[in-house]
Amino acid sequence: MMVTGRSEETSGRIRLGMVGGGNDAFIGGVHRIAARLDDRFQLVAGALSSTPEKSRESGQALGLERVYDDFKQMAIREARLKSGIEAVSIVTPNHVHYAAAREFLKRGIHVICDKPLTATLNDAKKLVKAAENSNALFILTHNYTGYPMVRQAREMVASGQIGNIRVVQVEYAQDWLTEQQDFKQAEWRTDPERSGAGGSTGDIGTHAFNLACFVTGLKAESLAADIQAFVPGRQVDDNAHVLVRFDGGARGMLWCSQVAPGNENALRLRVYGEKGGLEWAQEDPNYLWFTPYGEPKRLITRNGPGAGEAANRISRVPPGHPEGYLEGFANIYGEAAEAILAFRDEKPPEASVVYPTVHDGLEGVRFVAACVQSSARNAAWVKLD
Amino acid sequence: MMVTGRSEETSGRIRLGMVGGGNDAFIGGVHRIAARLDDRFQLVAGALSSTPEKSRESGQALGLERVYDDFKQMAIREARLKSGIEAVSIVTPNHVHYAAAREFLKRGIHVICDKPLTATLNDAKKLVKAAENSNALFILTHNYTGYPMVRQAREMVASGQIGNIRVVQVEYAQDWLTEQQDFKQAEWRTDPERSGAGGSTGDIGTHAFNLACFVTGLKAESLAADIQAFVPGRQVDDNAHVLVRFDGGARGMLWCSQVAPGNENALRLRVYGEKGGLEWAQEDPNYLWFTPYGEPKRLITRNGPGAGEAANRISRVPPGHPEGYLEGFANIYGEAAEAILAFRDEKPPEASVVYPTVHDGLEGVRFVAACVQSSARNAAWVKLD
Amino acid sequence: MMVTGRSEETSGRIRLGMVGGGNDAFIGGVHRIAARLDDRFQLVAGALSSTPEKSRESGQALGLERVYDDFKQMAIREARLKSGIEAVSIVTPNHVHYAAAREFLKRGIHVICDKPLTATLNDAKKLVKAAENSNALFILTHNYTGYPMVRQAREMVASGQIGNIRVVQVEYAQDWLTEQQDFKQAEWRTDPERSGAGGSTGDIGTHAFNLACFVTGLKAESLAADIQAFVPGRQVDDNAHVLVRFDGGARGMLWCSQVAPGNENALRLRVYGEKGGLEWAQEDPNYLWFTPYGEPKRLITRNGPGAGEAANRISRVPPGHPEGYLEGFANIYGEAAEAILAFRDEKPPEASVVYPTVHDGLEGVRFVAACVQSSARNAAWVKLD
Amino acid sequence: MMVTGRSEETSGRIRLGMVGGGNDAFIGGVHRIAARLDDRFQLVAGALSSTPEKSRESGQALGLERVYDDFKQMAIREARLKSGIEAVSIVTPNHVHYAAAREFLKRGIHVICDKPLTATLNDAKKLVKAAENSNALFILTHNYTGYPMVRQAREMVASGQIGNIRVVQVEYAQDWLTEQQDFKQAEWRTDPERSGAGGSTGDIGTHAFNLACFVTGLKAESLAADIQAFVPGRQVDDNAHVLVRFDGGARGMLWCSQVAPGNENALRLRVYGEKGGLEWAQEDPNYLWFTPYGEPKRLITRNGPGAGEAANRISRVPPGHPEGYLEGFANIYGEAAEAILAFRDEKPPEASVVYPTVHDGLEGVRFVAACVQSSARNAAWVKLD
Repeated sequence: MMVTGRSEETSGRIRLGMVGGGNDAFIGGVHRIAARLDDRFQLVAGALSSTPEKSRESGQALGLERVYDDFKQMAIREARLKSGIEAVSIVTPNHVHYAAAREFLKRGIHVICDKPLTATLNDAKKLVKAAENSNALFILTHNYTGYPMVRQAREMVASGQIGNIRVVQVEYAQDWLTEQQDFKQAEWRTDPERSGAGGSTGDIGTHAFNLACFVTGLKAESLAADIQAFVPGRQVDDNAHVLVRFDGGARGMLWCSQVAPGNENALRLRVYGEKGGLEWAQEDPNYLWFTPYGEPKRLITRNGPGAGEAANRISRVPPGHPEGYLEGFANIYGEAAEAILAFRDEKPPEASVVYPTVHDGLEGVRFVAACVQSSARNAAWVKLD
Repeated sequence: MMVTGRSEETSGRIRLGMVGGGNDAFIGGVHRIAARLDDRFQLVAGALSSTPEKSRESGQALGLERVYDDFKQMAIREARLKSGIEAVSIVTPNHVHYAAAREFLKRGIHVICDKPLTATLNDAKKLVKAAENSNALFILTHNYTGYPMVRQAREMVASGQIGNIRVVQVEYAQDWLTEQQDFKQAEWRTDPERSGAGGSTGDIGTHAFNLACFVTGLKAESLAADIQAFVPGRQVDDNAHVLVRFDGGARGMLWCSQVAPGNENALRLRVYGEKGGLEWAQEDPNYLWFTPYGEPKRLITRNGPGAGEAANRISRVPPGHPEGYLEGFANIYGEAAEAILAFRDEKPPEASVVYPTVHDGLEGVRFVAACVQSSARNAAWVKLD
Repeated sequence: MMVTGRSEETSGRIRLGMVGGGNDAFIGGVHRIAARLDDRFQLVAGALSSTPEKSRESGQALGLERVYDDFKQMAIREARLKSGIEAVSIVTPNHVHYAAAREFLKRGIHVICDKPLTATLNDAKKLVKAAENSNALFILTHNYTGYPMVRQAREMVASGQIGNIRVVQVEYAQDWLTEQQDFKQAEWRTDPERSGAGGSTGDIGTHAFNLACFVTGLKAESLAADIQAFVPGRQVDDNAHVLVRFDGGARGMLWCSQVAPGNENALRLRVYGEKGGLEWAQEDPNYLWFTPYGEPKRLITRNGPGAGEAANRISRVPPGHPEGYLEGFANIYGEAAEAILAFRDEKPPEASVVYPTVHDGLEGVRFVAACVQSSARNAAWVKLD
Repeated sequence: MMVTGRSEETSGRIRLGMVGGGNDAFIGGVHRIAARLDDRFQLVAGALSSTPEKSRESGQALGLERVYDDFKQMAIREARLKSGIEAVSIVTPNHVHYAAAREFLKRGIHVICDKPLTATLNDAKKLVKAAENSNALFILTHNYTGYPMVRQAREMVASGQIGNIRVVQVEYAQDWLTEQQDFKQAEWRTDPERSGAGGSTGDIGTHAFNLACFVTGLKAESLAADIQAFVPGRQVDDNAHVLVRFDGGARGMLWCSQVAPGNENALRLRVYGEKGGLEWAQEDPNYLWFTPYGEPKRLITRNGPGAGEAANRISRVPPGHPEGYLEGFANIYGEAAEAILAFRDEKPPEASVVYPTVHDGLEGVRFVAACVQSSARNAAWVKLD
């Protein structure tokens, strides 16, 4: 039962700060586990909430060494410390991403930022500039790209095993907003001020869009969208039907929904080319179905026979012992660690190191804006550049 | 292991003729098994091929009592016989459906016709008139509506178990036209003269469209389609991406493809309403997944606990003993038999008897025409009436 | 969408009689559909119930040409007719099989008999003799051997694709006897006088045992069984746990149960050899999972890529259009038809024609007897010859 | 998307040492991730290999504060330190467990020990005594009991939802020893000196046995086993077929195999009672199938509707975001942390805290010994006490 894959590295852990992720947040806790799993980061500082009091309270609960009132204070002070943070995780609601990231980027602190990149296209463009003007790294946690079998799919497409791509079917269906909700997670995610103009399109549609592009290596050229807010009173979309045209002639459909009862986090990707097809589902992430045209369908398992280097290098345990969401998320942190350690040595990371960038983030925000714009124009085609 | 469901009826079998379905045809053999399965029809006459010689040869191979040179001859002579056919199955390529059906309808012979209704919208409209002007019955073999669990889904929607419908996802994916094919089945199905303007849209898209409407009880109001012919030289579409708007506000996506490697006959329907969701797949037809919102997903099996009268009355064997494509197809013939026997008695059939009609067929041909028209106009919305 | 497989044959249909299968029986109706499906048999005579009145009533309901008071009368008279039946289906409760079969065999009428062969080992041995002394054919309807993918598995084992077999796991689980039942099916199947000493072992264990032997080609040498009657008052077993040793060193486990809630007809076979593994389940019969050791698991579908001649010759419709229980059952009748037609011509059937024989039936009854005997001796090993 | 479940606790992390788990070991790395995941342990000391040189090398690679030549030295010195380790993880080959555990137990250091408990029954009994004579805690990492849906199943059984249990089917199938292997993992696991008399029975059979007992709450009274070493030259079993009798009358089958191609870590449990059935599989651990007798099967998902407190309290992320092997393993460490923190406070842990004990370990070793003994006596029944 030999395990190939990421080795544990324990010395020289990267000093990490966090913006957002206070007591009652969801995604902050996920980022902390992801950062900790492979023992390559050490969380030492934070500005965890929108008010100084809550921030302190949350920071103490986590036993952080240094707790700040707000992200700006944190960026300024940490930048001055000899052993200040090298990287910061930004896990606030979307509308804060840009302002927070900017402060760290301009002080040379690497940013690991939750998605979508920003709440507005304008912010996204400014953040791209901020990242380009900084020599610090910017990693966007489109965490589903961290699943080993997603990497496997990407490698198989790149190596030509399914031929030129014709059809891309991607969807992300949930049901948690089927009825009006009033708890905190639902609240900001359905508030256009904090979440952005997109509801389901921003929260999960961007994941689906990013996944499709990541695996296929294709650029989406234009889209036509029919978006809806089915629940009365909801200010942002909770369902979207999108047609996509990719460069090179491939066509796709994207469906995202938060009102589809029986779906928890049903992110599914299917890619069909001239020579074969691939199918993957987030809820069963250790499996990749591959059909070479004219042959029986094959089940490739994580770390199992048929899995290649792109998947194995980010896999921890033997085949048949499932890895899940947290391990996939941790792989984004793992890639960030590789890149940051290479940065320390003033070298580029290994070619195998892959993570979503600020440019992927911009494309995601463009996707949301285009969906909203297309739908307002009765599903007319909108270009994505 | 009591079996509820369709009883065997053996006396007074209905005399049936067939147009098309000669030696090298596919669907004709399916119709014959479907007609025979429950022993309610007796095939006695035929005009099985486009040439008299082939027709005779095929008729003799089947041991038919009366073989004709062509469908017109058959319609004329059978109508004069005291014990002539009461019904005819029309299983030719699409472009022959109208001309053949007309001959029988005007002579009061019931027509059981393969789908799509016709190759052109013009023919479809004329066929509707011909049917309306006849007192004979017209049954269209959208055979997937004959699966018991499709009926179960329809009954659950109708009884309000999933609430007002918001989202309909339907798809029919195949892979057999991934490369250029030259055998007979592929030949006429990709020839617009014989198949109609739609390729995949006509051959399988109509099934998907019909299934979605049948289960939801909704009428599609308009669609926007992006259709493609991926294989070089192909004259009709082999892939289609379609957005649909239903009356009452529900929205849908329809995907059909014949170039998706790894898909054999992957017809799948998912329906989501305010109160729950339903999921069904043709390749595993004895299962219906039902999620009442906020409760665990449930697996309803054919003839098993949770299955209701609409499904049980057309089910033959106990749960866990799978029924398949032929049994579903036979259920259309079973419904036809119920209707024809009621017709004999000059009564309407029982309210539970359900089958696709010439009007469903017209809607299918409209669907194809709308897809072609919308796609020619860059996926603009086209109304479906 | 070319269909390979069994062609329809319509001329020279085989004249068939039936013993048992009256109005309220289950399996008789299945046999009639199976005989009819491919149009190779014509049911013309019957003695359908245990009393002359019921027999007549049932026969009339089916529109039979000739109805008899009892099987003996039927055997005598039909044997004298110029166009009397050539074959008879025996579908009574188990304890009648021997007496009925004997009457037809000794008059040269082929017998198609439901399983298990008989209710007692003594009857089984006498029936083997009766069959050996007759020149008529004897076909036992272990219908699961008629599934195309079961044939596929058998062919793969025979051709060495999984190497020498080491482990055989087979099970048949149901839940319909979880509580005491009083309808007719449950009644005779739990009455040792009519069903035999075995309850679940006889009713479904014999199917599992036969399937394992059929696919592997191995002979079971001995078994050790722990059988139970969990439901209070039940006179026969409703659950059995059996260890099996096969010739050549392979070992197996067999589980059958009628008290396992959530199982409908969960007959599953898994075979593991030195070079690979095979997995098949009756409830999803169109799929066969094949793992060549060290390679990804493959999904072989009926009539799909990877399926061979043994499966394709008994397959009717394209891959992805599921065939089910009735089609599998009809394949036993199809093989019977092949054998009977060859018999007419005084030739042996083609080598590809395969059906369960009276000897398989004897082994099934021995299996039941051995289970009962072993369990009575605290699961001691009992030889199977 | 509120997450219920284990909160992150960061202050007062438990000081942990490790015995075994050097550079080329598998399970040591798993234990370290499991200990780290929820941030409740801090690994500070180790004796990681069988030689001082390797131990030092491995310890440095992990950046441990204190590295020892061997476990005895470590136990003695750590016990004397004011801030010495409070707990030790023992992750050596099986034959070392007893000697190592004893040294820590007698000095009041809690032991978290890999399974099976020991290589011999004699050692196991001595270890039980050592644990009983110590006031330190002993936690055995039968990690599969840490999966939330296993806890869910256990809670449902305990609350009577499936009624009195009749049948237990459990199996653990792998294929990695289908052929002779020579890498380190295979080497010691197939060496009776280091692994114990059982091969597959010890390595994975104990997991299956423990899981069955854990979920059902039943005690196994006796077993009959037929074990094999299929691969030529192998000194321990690589396949075992076992009949089990539980107290109260339930019966079971247990199959474990390391020579079943197509199985990676296929641990599956099925439990059937008078009122319902439960089914769970380790490779898809977030799903639990529940069938109340006479109702449709239900899919209960981790943290989803239908999941109860026993599962939710050890769940981290929302339903549909899969947790896997590492999270389940971490839950054993989480329970250990709860118990150790309560111990610090001289209180018993909360009633909800559950972990496998030294007594469970003894039962596992008894299981292996009984399998070997029974098989040597031709599968005679052997009592388990």
